[in-house]
Amino acid sequence: MSAPSDAADVGAGEIADVPSSPDLGYIRRKEDYLRRLRRIEGQARGLQRMVEDDTYCIDILTQISAMTKALQSVALGLLDDHMGHCVTQAAQAGGDEARYRLQEASDAIARLVRS
Amino acid sequence: MSAPSDAADVGAGEIADVPSSPDLGYIRRKEDYLRRLRRIEGQARGLQRMVEDDTYCIDILTQISAMTKALQSVALGLLDDHMGHCVTQAAQAGGDEARYRLQEASDAIARLVRS
Amino acid sequence: MSAPSDAADVGAGEIADVPSSPDLGYIRRKEDYLRRLRRIEGQARGLQRMVEDDTYCIDILTQISAMTKALQSVALGLLDDHMGHCVTQAAQAGGDEARYRLQEASDAIARLVRS
Amino acid sequence: MSAPSDAADVGAGEIADVPSSPDLGYIRRKEDYLRRLRRIEGQARGLQRMVEDDTYCIDILTQISAMTKALQSVALGLLDDHMGHCVTQAAQAGGDEARYRLQEASDAIARLVRS
Repeated sequence: MSAPSDAADVGAGEIADVPSSPDLGYIRRKEDYLRRLRRIEGQARGLQRMVEDDTYCIDILTQISAMTKALQSVALGLLDDHMGHCVTQAAQAGGDEARYRLQEASDAIARLVRS
Repeated sequence: MSAPSDAADVGAGEIADVPSSPDLGYIRRKEDYLRRLRRIEGQARGLQRMVEDDTYCIDILTQISAMTKALQSVALGLLDDHMGHCVTQAAQAGGDEARYRLQEASDAIARLVRS
Repeated sequence: MSAPSDAADVGAGEIADVPSSPDLGYIRRKEDYLRRLRRIEGQARGLQRMVEDDTYCIDILTQISAMTKALQSVALGLLDDHMGHCVTQAAQAGGDEARYRLQEASDAIARLVRS
Repeated sequence: MSAPSDAADVGAGEIADVPSSPDLGYIRRKEDYLRRLRRIEGQARGLQRMVEDDTYCIDILTQISAMTKALQSVALGLLDDHMGHCVTQAAQAGGDEARYRLQEASDAIARLVRS
């Protein structure tokens, strides 16, 4: 993991808004993301039951498409939050920090578009 | 669910290869699919831990891309098995059965391509 | 190109339904495909004009999304026609021909899903 | 088109860097984009020739996958340039401008991921 920092890393004496320690954009919507990911976990368990019960292939595929969409939607939400916080902060800081964070975001977007 | 039949439905006296009761192509690889789906369920749980631990957004997105690819790969495997069994049988049977199964497979492919 | 045959290859004395010479499923809708591909070519020219005219990036991206969807839709149509003809014929022929054509179709579907 | 401005709109007396008039990130790579789009236009023409010549469906699908990837790659390049210029400038400007541009970029990313 190349996570530059997380809440646990922010010690007492640290300055909270140094560019190398981006705010996590999703923090305020944490419960919402956890709820959606629990539902996705439930979909993964549901798929196992379908296979165990010899469910018709096409119905399993329909369920996989729904789960993929749910996962994609979580990713787009996280990316949106990330741009509104980490990327915005880095852009305001400018310099290498900005270049690094923009490249990192672009790479994540490319992985999403291609997956 | 519009599953036309499943193993539990195939009673003692039934003729096994009537077109309306397609073989499930994935049956022989059931354990393999279950193993992959359990791993996907584990990835969904891992994502929840990442959110709970305030993991950096980009690392969560990387994990989501990996999980999406794993799910897509299961879907392509199921589709491949489906074409080699249900679609092949339906094509051999011909008539309405063939037309129905081909349309159903095309619709499932379109959902996968678009999701 | 690994095209196994095309209409021009089907000589007078040939048996029309030998497995190694699949019917082209899209032949009857050729004009429809040509019309859609000409429109896609026009979209590609439109994108060049947008870049030349310094159009705002987001508007170019919107146009690219529309063009990608149009292209995807042609691919899904061709695949549907292909399954209704070449794959169906191969399934009826059975044996190696069926296995080869099914594998080929599965590979094409995987490329579409992943692109 | 909702393009907020383009080169032709920038009149003599206008202040060049007002937030409502974002720099176009791709300007410096314009020739590169035009070259890639001309190749994509050529691919669209090639597809028409393939249909006219009754090329085997699978070969046409392979060509469509390649063209889709080329188009996606142009989109990811434009998005990257856009984030490095328009989004960065908007983030530095802050306020409504930043919120508007970030939302606009997120929407474009969602369209790309879903297309």
